[in-house]
Amino acid sequence: MKHAKIVSSGMYIPQKVMTNAEFEKLTMLTIDPYYSDVIGINHRHISEDWETPTYMAAEAAKKALQRIGMQPEEIGLIIVGTDTPEAVSPPDAPRVQYLIGAHKAETMAFNVNASCANGALLLDIAAKYIAMGDCKNVLVIGTYAMTKFLNWKYAWEALFSDGAAALILSASDEPGYIGSVSRADGSWWQNWGIYMGAGTMNLQGIERGLHKLDLRGAYPASVNDEGWPNLLNKLIEKYNIPKDEIAMVFFTQVRKKTILKVMDTIGLPVEKTQIVMDKFGYTGSACVYMAYDDAYDEGKLENVSGKYILFLTSGVGFQQVAVAFKA
Amino acid sequence: MKHAKIVSSGMYIPQKVMTNAEFEKLTMLTIDPYYSDVIGINHRHISEDWETPTYMAAEAAKKALQRIGMQPEEIGLIIVGTDTPEAVSPPDAPRVQYLIGAHKAETMAFNVNASCANGALLLDIAAKYIAMGDCKNVLVIGTYAMTKFLNWKYAWEALFSDGAAALILSASDEPGYIGSVSRADGSWWQNWGIYMGAGTMNLQGIERGLHKLDLRGAYPASVNDEGWPNLLNKLIEKYNIPKDEIAMVFFTQVRKKTILKVMDTIGLPVEKTQIVMDKFGYTGSACVYMAYDDAYDEGKLENVSGKYILFLTSGVGFQQVAVAFKA
Repeated sequence: MKHAKIVSSGMYIPQKVMTNAEFEKLTMLTIDPYYSDVIGINHRHISEDWETPTYMAAEAAKKALQRIGMQPEEIGLIIVGTDTPEAVSPPDAPRVQYLIGAHKAETMAFNVNASCANGALLLDIAAKYIAMGDCKNVLVIGTYAMTKFLNWKYAWEALFSDGAAALILSASDEPGYIGSVSRADGSWWQNWGIYMGAGTMNLQGIERGLHKLDLRGAYPASVNDEGWPNLLNKLIEKYNIPKDEIAMVFFTQVRKKTILKVMDTIGLPVEKTQIVMDKFGYTGSACVYMAYDDAYDEGKLENVSGKYILFLTSGVGFQQVAVAFKA
Repeated sequence: MKHAKIVSSGMYIPQKVMTNAEFEKLTMLTIDPYYSDVIGINHRHISEDWETPTYMAAEAAKKALQRIGMQPEEIGLIIVGTDTPEAVSPPDAPRVQYLIGAHKAETMAFNVNASCANGALLLDIAAKYIAMGDCKNVLVIGTYAMTKFLNWKYAWEALFSDGAAALILSASDEPGYIGSVSRADGSWWQNWGIYMGAGTMNLQGIERGLHKLDLRGAYPASVNDEGWPNLLNKLIEKYNIPKDEIAMVFFTQVRKKTILKVMDTIGLPVEKTQIVMDKFGYTGSACVYMAYDDAYDEGKLENVSGKYILFLTSGVGFQQVAVAFKA
């Protein structure tokens, strides 16, 4: 079996910004100091009409390709993870393939939707395609345009921001991909989502507000506060990962206080995670790749060869996935 | 590495039927004898409001589990393939996990969208999760509710029917999964789809008709007539599959004449494929599993142990995937 290494990253952030003060003025709701201090979000990026999910994904992918001088034709598989797709059908992935010019090589392309758990899941699927010899280079992209699905009248909507980020995985003689653990519990499916789809995508559905993100029942804090460390410890135990050889852990950027608490619970210093919601807001399927890209830019991924890089992502449905790589 | 074998199948078909004569009366269009003779479709099944994508998927999955007396807790991963989802987010898969009772075991669950290429792709992903030791049993389900996205005013809409079908793959000491080949070309993305999504899922989008399946530019016949045999031959050559050891080839059930032509082109007798569009209409992500389930019921999958079973699926975007198993 081949090893799969993460070899590049790139991201795209819309220029248009809405600060917390602007959000408060628009909605006439008070979100600070809670959003700035506990959630860790002080502004959000709003995609314009032309900044569609596939456009943002393609721009992020181009940056990841450019960083290592890779041609789009060298990519064997493109996986796009999103729960804010550009269309119901076709999937975004072949559109992204076209936008980056990889369609000339007939590169395989498909979408995955595990909502905001996509980040770690896509890495897991991509690594398996490399491990089993199907392709040498895989492009995984998370793209998120959730502000296009907001009512702008609830405090919790302050969470959301738009953007895309991409990683490239390549076959290597050195490890590489180690493995993953995951869990899901669909008894929470009705709690939070955009509940428009087959049978409701019509005028009546619009009148019922189904085309907007709807928080019907809050998830208890324990789903992440306890679920994340449990899953991480399961990953660490399953693959015998020595804690002092963990270089970085990247989490879904949904709540700063949760990330700090989870790092403390598993006994890792806060320097070994990357918190980026203060820079980019919450960008769902894209956020964990943004955190990786940001850590790379800050030089935190230098001199970590042979050490472990972990990703843990979590999303409504719900699903949680944790995956381990050696840098 | 573990081998992955297909061990069960099941399907769900809505009871409500619309014959070609009824379609002609409703739309005031003439579709026969062309639809009956060339496409191979003489009626379609229409899902009721309560027959949602996740409901149909869960019913198909329950039948596949019951056939082999497997408990939902024994499933390690559920993959739902669809481009007619019940919601934009969360994905259908955790909802199906809940409906079949697998959420108690926290079984992993996610959606894949390669449009109607899902059938072979899901088998490929599932087999990789088994091969690499992640899980012993994987449930793959295609679910299709495309009649809920029709205008009922174009002749080509006569193609579509609703339903779901599921296969179960299990780890085995005997092969098993052999491998796959695939291609995609996103320069065709704009041709055919349901173009409502991020930024257009609103009243203006409804007014523009984006919530309905839209055929903007027909795919030339060569995409399937030439693309399918090329891909199948690539699969056969890559894995050194002797043609006389091929027991069955299952194709996307989109056009009877194409399937017959492709079997002829690759030099296989027509008995080695299963044509089911006359029974179920065109059911997209579900159709190739329906063909498998139907062949099983007819006894065509008995006494084929050690022989090859191939799947080729094809969908808008476009993507095409072919996968080989030993029975």
